[in-house]
Amino acid sequence: MSTESVSEDCIGWAARDPSGVLSPYTFSRRVVGYDDVKLKITHCGICYADVIWTRNKQGHSKYPLVPGHEIVGIVKEVGNNVHRFKVGDHIGVGTYVNSCRDCEYCNDGLEVHCSKGAILTFDGIDVDGTITKGGYSSYIVVHERYCYRIPANYPLASAAPLLCAGITVYTPMMHHKMNQPGKSLGVVGLGGLGHMAVKFGKAFGLNVTVFSTSISKKEEALNVLGADKFVVSSDQEQIRALAKSLDFIVDTASGDHSFDVYLSLLKTAGILVVVGFPSEIKFHPGSLILGMKTISGSITGGTKETQEMIDFCAANKIYPEIEVVPIQNANEAIERLIKRDVKYRFVIDIENSLK
Amino acid sequence: MSTESVSEDCIGWAARDPSGVLSPYTFSRRVVGYDDVKLKITHCGICYADVIWTRNKQGHSKYPLVPGHEIVGIVKEVGNNVHRFKVGDHIGVGTYVNSCRDCEYCNDGLEVHCSKGAILTFDGIDVDGTITKGGYSSYIVVHERYCYRIPANYPLASAAPLLCAGITVYTPMMHHKMNQPGKSLGVVGLGGLGHMAVKFGKAFGLNVTVFSTSISKKEEALNVLGADKFVVSSDQEQIRALAKSLDFIVDTASGDHSFDVYLSLLKTAGILVVVGFPSEIKFHPGSLILGMKTISGSITGGTKETQEMIDFCAANKIYPEIEVVPIQNANEAIERLIKRDVKYRFVIDIENSLK
Repeated sequence: MSTESVSEDCIGWAARDPSGVLSPYTFSRRVVGYDDVKLKITHCGICYADVIWTRNKQGHSKYPLVPGHEIVGIVKEVGNNVHRFKVGDHIGVGTYVNSCRDCEYCNDGLEVHCSKGAILTFDGIDVDGTITKGGYSSYIVVHERYCYRIPANYPLASAAPLLCAGITVYTPMMHHKMNQPGKSLGVVGLGGLGHMAVKFGKAFGLNVTVFSTSISKKEEALNVLGADKFVVSSDQEQIRALAKSLDFIVDTASGDHSFDVYLSLLKTAGILVVVGFPSEIKFHPGSLILGMKTISGSITGGTKETQEMIDFCAANKIYPEIEVVPIQNANEAIERLIKRDVKYRFVIDIENSLK
Repeated sequence: MSTESVSEDCIGWAARDPSGVLSPYTFSRRVVGYDDVKLKITHCGICYADVIWTRNKQGHSKYPLVPGHEIVGIVKEVGNNVHRFKVGDHIGVGTYVNSCRDCEYCNDGLEVHCSKGAILTFDGIDVDGTITKGGYSSYIVVHERYCYRIPANYPLASAAPLLCAGITVYTPMMHHKMNQPGKSLGVVGLGGLGHMAVKFGKAFGLNVTVFSTSISKKEEALNVLGADKFVVSSDQEQIRALAKSLDFIVDTASGDHSFDVYLSLLKTAGILVVVGFPSEIKFHPGSLILGMKTISGSITGGTKETQEMIDFCAANKIYPEIEVVPIQNANEAIERLIKRDVKYRFVIDIENSLK
């Protein structure tokens, strides 16, 4: 991989400090190497990770920081070794842009679990020592292995949220065999991840119950997303009535909540998958032991499964619900995301607003 | 099932109040019904459940309480419908003696998860309204479905601990496919359950690491039980050196301990099974999410798997390590069990001491 840089011709928006406020920022990207693809970014989804990193919630953010890891665009240039993509193709880039490509996980197409650590799409330290910069920018250069084909008939704006929100729920659902028609699924939290879990659940033929803190989402959950049942999570009576009734739960809630309650809703041998990030996970051992229940975690997925998920969405006409915003509204959108005021994913129209 | 009772010809030892002190007690059992087996008890293991129930730790113990659910003995009488057993057979009875025999779980041979609740071997309320009484007694009458064949060449005293300690670790090990030679297993805690997990692990061809609070168990863990490695769980350096090295962990510890530490020892997609009963289970979501790890619970097993486990032990010459005591020493043995002063399971010699 070349460390040679071209001129500072990439324009983006970056956070400069832990205030997280984004503003225009011009920088360089590496020249296109033998295995690289250069794509003109058309859209980038806004993920909660963008909040965490731009505001240095984990204490290791490196500024200026260009966030964004739900990236889609159009191929503008390919390296000599690139055979999977050609100029003009629609492609996506997700949460990581490099890995060792040599360990057992990389060899299994599970690059996100690379033994040496997958290199994140932004704020990661790449093998050439540079700090990776994300999709709130005009273009990006990525090794072809970490690029995904977006079918031509799939809207680019809708494809963006698949690259993180989509794969984050699809991977554990497949890993735990939640694609068995007739089984029952609970989805806790109805944000970017939760609404995709509902859509996948229905595509898999599951009976889907949504658990949300807010009754305001009921109408849409049932009529737009196609859930079978909606439960306000504070309604003790409704919750009790569902005891031991669910085969699976996908828990996307990042606010603190009771795990004992949701474990009590699982049937014997039921599985709860955590993809949110509460401050801690705590429950009584009996909640797990009686009924031999399982709680599992998951983050995004490997390259093989990400491509499979995109193709599954295209084949089954599964589209995230999005609100498209110009880059100039990115700060406002992030504030609204923090207040959960979004149905269900913001996508930045990079192509038409970032000049 | 007949509710008719014979005379008070069953002698046992019972706790009379939450002090848990056991003393001689005479009571009646039901007459042998069409599907029943009457067995003369020769041995009964002492399980930590006996402490919990005799001392009313869960608040619902019904006195006088005759504990014991690791029961083995010799068939003395069978009902007219009983075809699986005959007088003189060696059989065992475990943690439950009845269930609905009609639900999806019973139909799958998973009676311990019966929809209507499996009826526990002691302190349970049976379908005829009587309170079940356990194996610290001279004989027991049990529906044949909840009796297991003990191969003639398997020592009866050694068979007792299989009925709870053995099946409690065997079931999750099979459920989570821990019987893959060459994989690595951590066993946390080296008591009745833990020492069986080590023996099963070695029989399955696993590389077994024991984690114990006490260095005093090292020699025996390696040389008697056959573990490959022994780690004192407070040794931070040894623990750190094992990061991401284990495929599986069977956690039998009932004392409070860090789950983050043990989750950090699992490889990607590794599985930790909880069979102990700490006061709570608590960890950081990142411990589960990064590396898509799993925590699962388990209690004993169904009738089908219990028989399979006994046959597996006989075929592979797997014998629990036991200390045989007379019933007159039951109170002392329970005190020693609480102090973890046992290698690794007490078994009461009912046949020769209970007169």
